[in-house]
Amino acid sequence: MSASDPGFRAAVEEAQAGYDEGGVPIGACLVAKDGTIIGKGHNLRVQKGSATLHAEISALENSGRLPATAYQGATMYTSLSPCDMCTGACILYKVSRVVIGENKTFVGGEEYLKHRGIEVVVLDDETCKELMRKFINEKPDVW
Amino acid sequence: MSASDPGFRAAVEEAQAGYDEGGVPIGACLVAKDGTIIGKGHNLRVQKGSATLHAEISALENSGRLPATAYQGATMYTSLSPCDMCTGACILYKVSRVVIGENKTFVGGEEYLKHRGIEVVVLDDETCKELMRKFINEKPDVW
Repeated sequence: MSASDPGFRAAVEEAQAGYDEGGVPIGACLVAKDGTIIGKGHNLRVQKGSATLHAEISALENSGRLPATAYQGATMYTSLSPCDMCTGACILYKVSRVVIGENKTFVGGEEYLKHRGIEVVVLDDETCKELMRKFINEKPDVW
Repeated sequence: MSASDPGFRAAVEEAQAGYDEGGVPIGACLVAKDGTIIGKGHNLRVQKGSATLHAEISALENSGRLPATAYQGATMYTSLSPCDMCTGACILYKVSRVVIGENKTFVGGEEYLKHRGIEVVVLDDETCKELMRKFINEKPDVW
């Protein structure tokens, strides 16, 4: 797992797309065991006034309705440590691994993911941190 | 908390609406501390091919983007014990109570909700159980 993984790069591109739309710059990408990108998405809280379309939920939703086998061995890449809802979604679908861009801005359910048998990798990626720093600095009321 | 609560009745009506649409008959309703219904919804897995629009997620989404204070003292009524994702969503929004129609068909994150400080009430409601029995009997492959 590294910042050069296609799945991670896609998650960061999604985060950037969210920033460019004036939204919360968090992106995610679900990648199958064989490396195929299943789906990706970004936080749409601002853009759609949505309470539930966080990055990981968007990525799962954009992946469509799939058989349970599609998630076996899958990795959820996300630019920011997942909140309790997104943590639960990763557990529901039994992804094997969650790769997190950064957890300096926010720490979510990492320990609970591990407790439920999911591998957690934190990349401490500078691009992810800088996107969140810019966003929070520009729109502290939205964050 | 009882089966005659308006919030619970609305959740059961949503479950019935889901059944009538040919979907998974699970409904939910979010009720504010003062008793006002904030939002309600039902599982749309079949209807929208959705991986994330479970009943509680639909109810939260239909409630719109609200300030954190709106969820203080709120109750999430749901016809069936919540899965890990919906459990996490209730924790994210810090609702005070989750009232569950039944947990005979499926037991979700009840213990984790309690561990995170959320009151859990199980009504063991016959209407909710019968809806799920009919659905599973008619469409075992969908469940």
